[in-house]
Amino acid sequence: MFSKETYMQRRAMLKKAIGSGVVLFLGNDDMGLNYADNACHYRQDSTFLYFFGLPFAGLSAIIDVDEDEEIIFGDELTIDDIIWMGKQPTLREKCERVGITTSRPTAEITKYLHAAAQKGQPVHYLPPYRPEHRIKLLEWLGLPFARQESSTSLIRAVVAQRNYKSEEEIIEIEKACNVTADMHIAATKAVRPDIYEYEVAAILEGVAFTAGCNLSFATIATINGQTLHNHYHGNKIKQSDLFLVDAGAETPMGYAGDMSSTIPAGKTFTARQREIYQIQNRMHRESVKALRPGITFAEVYDLSARILVEGLTQVGLMKGNPEDAVREGAHAMFYPHGLGHMMGLDVHDMENLGEIWVGYDGKPKSAQFGRRSLRLGRMLEPGFVLTIEPGIYFIPELIDKWKAEKKCADFINYDVAETYKDFGGIRNEEDYLITPDGSRRLGKKIPLTPEEVEALR
Amino acid sequence: MFSKETYMQRRAMLKKAIGSGVVLFLGNDDMGLNYADNACHYRQDSTFLYFFGLPFAGLSAIIDVDEDEEIIFGDELTIDDIIWMGKQPTLREKCERVGITTSRPTAEITKYLHAAAQKGQPVHYLPPYRPEHRIKLLEWLGLPFARQESSTSLIRAVVAQRNYKSEEEIIEIEKACNVTADMHIAATKAVRPDIYEYEVAAILEGVAFTAGCNLSFATIATINGQTLHNHYHGNKIKQSDLFLVDAGAETPMGYAGDMSSTIPAGKTFTARQREIYQIQNRMHRESVKALRPGITFAEVYDLSARILVEGLTQVGLMKGNPEDAVREGAHAMFYPHGLGHMMGLDVHDMENLGEIWVGYDGKPKSAQFGRRSLRLGRMLEPGFVLTIEPGIYFIPELIDKWKAEKKCADFINYDVAETYKDFGGIRNEEDYLITPDGSRRLGKKIPLTPEEVEALR
Repeated sequence: MFSKETYMQRRAMLKKAIGSGVVLFLGNDDMGLNYADNACHYRQDSTFLYFFGLPFAGLSAIIDVDEDEEIIFGDELTIDDIIWMGKQPTLREKCERVGITTSRPTAEITKYLHAAAQKGQPVHYLPPYRPEHRIKLLEWLGLPFARQESSTSLIRAVVAQRNYKSEEEIIEIEKACNVTADMHIAATKAVRPDIYEYEVAAILEGVAFTAGCNLSFATIATINGQTLHNHYHGNKIKQSDLFLVDAGAETPMGYAGDMSSTIPAGKTFTARQREIYQIQNRMHRESVKALRPGITFAEVYDLSARILVEGLTQVGLMKGNPEDAVREGAHAMFYPHGLGHMMGLDVHDMENLGEIWVGYDGKPKSAQFGRRSLRLGRMLEPGFVLTIEPGIYFIPELIDKWKAEKKCADFINYDVAETYKDFGGIRNEEDYLITPDGSRRLGKKIPLTPEEVEALR
Repeated sequence: MFSKETYMQRRAMLKKAIGSGVVLFLGNDDMGLNYADNACHYRQDSTFLYFFGLPFAGLSAIIDVDEDEEIIFGDELTIDDIIWMGKQPTLREKCERVGITTSRPTAEITKYLHAAAQKGQPVHYLPPYRPEHRIKLLEWLGLPFARQESSTSLIRAVVAQRNYKSEEEIIEIEKACNVTADMHIAATKAVRPDIYEYEVAAILEGVAFTAGCNLSFATIATINGQTLHNHYHGNKIKQSDLFLVDAGAETPMGYAGDMSSTIPAGKTFTARQREIYQIQNRMHRESVKALRPGITFAEVYDLSARILVEGLTQVGLMKGNPEDAVREGAHAMFYPHGLGHMMGLDVHDMENLGEIWVGYDGKPKSAQFGRRSLRLGRMLEPGFVLTIEPGIYFIPELIDKWKAEKKCADFINYDVAETYKDFGGIRNEEDYLITPDGSRRLGKKIPLTPEEVEALR
C-alpha cells in the first residue's frame, strides 16, 4: 500500500475534477466458484484500489463532493470471523491507513444515497462489470439493469488520473515486469517436445507464486498460438511446434506485467519459422523505436502493419502496394489484433471504463477488422505505460473465410497462405513507459531475437 | 466426461423423483475479476456437471418433466469467437456428447419459461449462490431477489443422487486424491525455516497444475494453523513453527480431493508439539476405525471429541468427566469445527444445497458452538465419500473470550491454556469411501504419525 497522502491526493484531484455531486465506488465482493464459500482468489476493483487502497471484500465508498465527505462502508469482523479467518485490523484501522476517518456499516449506504437523491445530488458511478455491481445499483439506487448508466464525467476524470503513472506506480509496475520476465525466461528454458502445455504453464506460474505474486490474467501457453486467447493447456508438445506464451505477474498491490514469448519446441527455429519470426521482430523493434510523446499509437500500429506487409511480400504471402494493403486492412488476415494497450492496475488498464476513453481520448475508433481490436490509438504522453505486442498468425478458419469471400485478393496470395495453415502463430511482447524524450522498457530483458531465444534452449 | 448413458440415466432418475413440472438448471458464466474479460478460472456449476457434463460458460438447461423434454440453451460461436478462442465443437455437438438432442439459443429460454408458467407448471430450481444466478431468476422468471425460493423437492432429489458415488465417480475422486496426496508429500518435504508460506504454497499447487489438475479450493498453507480458513501466505516460517497445509486437487472433470497435513518447521516435532500431535492422531485413527454403514457421523464426531478431552486432560489442559465435557461443548474451545464433510464434485459436496439436506437428511442440527460447524451428522451409507479431519487449536482470541466469560470453567484449565497461546494448530485429513462393511481410504497414503512426517523431513 502507498502512503495515506497518496490516496488523499488522488481523491482531492478527483473531487476537483468532478466538481459536485456524490461519487459511489463499488468495491468487489468474494465470488463463489461452485458454492458461496468456495471463493476464487479475491481481487479488489482497480479504481477502488487506486483511490482507497484497501484490498478487502465487502467494502463500498462514497465521496460526497458537495459536503466534502469521504466515507467507507463495510462491516466489522465478529468473533466467528476471527476464529475462521484470523485476527485482522478493524475497519476503522484499515480506513486510517488510507486517510479515511469516517466508516459506517454497509446497511447505512442506502440511507445515505436516498438522502443524496432527495437533495438533488447526482450520483456518479463507473460501469458495472460484475453481476454483484448490477445488483447493488438495483438495490441501493433503485435502478433497473437497463437504466444503470454510468457517469461519463466520472469515467473521464478517473482516466485522466490513472492513465498517467506516478513514480511510485512505475516502481510497482516494474516489480511486476521483473517477475513477468522471470516467468518467460523459465518458460523459454522449459519448453520441450513430449510434455504437456500445462506442465510449462505450471512452471511459469510457479515463478510468479514463488515471488509472492499472483497472475495478472489467465496464462496463454499453447502450441496453437494462432488462437489469440487460448486458455486450453491440454495438448502434448511436438518437435515441430512453435510454443506461444502470453503471461504476466500481478504484485500484491495489484499492478500488472504482461509479456509474450514464442519458443521453438525443437532446440532451434526451422528456416521457415525463423523467416516469419524475423518479420515479427522487425515489427516489434521498429514500433519500440517509434515510441515518443507526440506520436499517436495508431500511427505506430500502422507502421507495424506496413512492416508486416513488406515482410510477407518478400516471403510471397502478400503482394501489391504496402500502404494500400494496410489501408484496406489486408494485413489483418495475419495480424488480427492491435499493437498494444495501456497497462497499470489492470493488465488492459481500465478496460471496464471503455477503451474509447482510455485509449482514444473520446474520439471515434475504426470499425475495420483488425484495426478495431487496437485498444489504444491516442497521442502518447509521458507517464503512459503500454505494451508492444505485434504478432503474425496463420488462422486456418480465417484463411478459408477470406479466401472464399475473395477478400483483399489484390494483396494476399491465398495459394501460399494455404501452405502455412499448420504454422501456428508468433507474438513477442514487452512493456514500455513513455518518457519525455522517448520510451523506456520496464523490467528486465526477455529473449527477443531468434539468437537470444535459442541461447536459452 | 462420462459416457452419454451416464448422464441420460442420471436425468431419468431425477425426472422420476420430481414427477412433474419444469426443472431449470443455471449453468455458471465467466466471472470478470477486475473487468469483464479478465475472467478467473472457469468453473461450471457442479449440479449442471452432474446431469449435463458440459464444462462451458453461458449454458442453461431445462428438463420439462411433463413433456419429457430435455433442452440446453446456449449460443453458437461466431467467427470472431473462433479467431480469439480457437475451433470448438458446435453447441449441437457438445449436447450430443451428453445425450441431449435439443439445443436452442439462450434468448428463447424466457419464452419457454413463460409458456410453462401459463400452463401452470411449477418451475423448480436450486438455491442461487452466484449473483448472476439471482439476476437470471429475476430476468427470466420475474422473481425479485426476496422471492427467489428454491425447490426443496429438487434439492432432496439431487442430494439423493449425488450423495451416493458410483464406481466411475469413485475412480475420478481417487485420481483427485492421488494428486492431492502428492501435493502434501511435496509440502512435507519443502517446509523449512526462513522461507515464506507462499513458497510452500507455490510448490504444492505446482504439483496439482503439473498433473493437469486445478485446485479444489483455495490453499491453506500457514504457520497460523489456529486460524481455520487462513488464506494469507505472506509470513516467514520460523524454526519453532508448526506449518499447517489444507489443500486439494480438482480433476478436469471437476472431482475434488481434500487433505491436511501438519509439519514441524524444525526437522522434528518438539516434545510439546508431539504430545498434542499424538492426541490428534488418536482422534483421527479412532474416527477412521469407527466408519461403517449404520453409525451416524455425529457419533463419530462425539467419539473424536471424547478422545480429545481425554488426551487434553492427561496434558492438564482439561479436567472433569469427558462425557460431560463433550455434552457441554467444552472440547470446542480446542476443536471448534466439525470432523468432516461429504466430498465429490464440490470439496464440501453440495454445500450450496444446504447441509441440512446433504449432511443431516433434513433433520435438525445442533446450534452449540463447535458442533454447529459439523457439516455431516447423518447415518452413514455405502457410497458416501467424506473427509476425516479432526483438529486441535489454540486460538488466543477464543481463549481470552471464554476465560473472561468463565465458560466451561469446570472442564478447562485456563491457566494452562494461557501457556499454549503461541502453539498454533494441528489438523490431519484424509478422504474415505463408506463401503458395505466399513470404509476405504481414497488415494495414496500421506504421512500421519509423527514418525511418518519426520521421515520425509
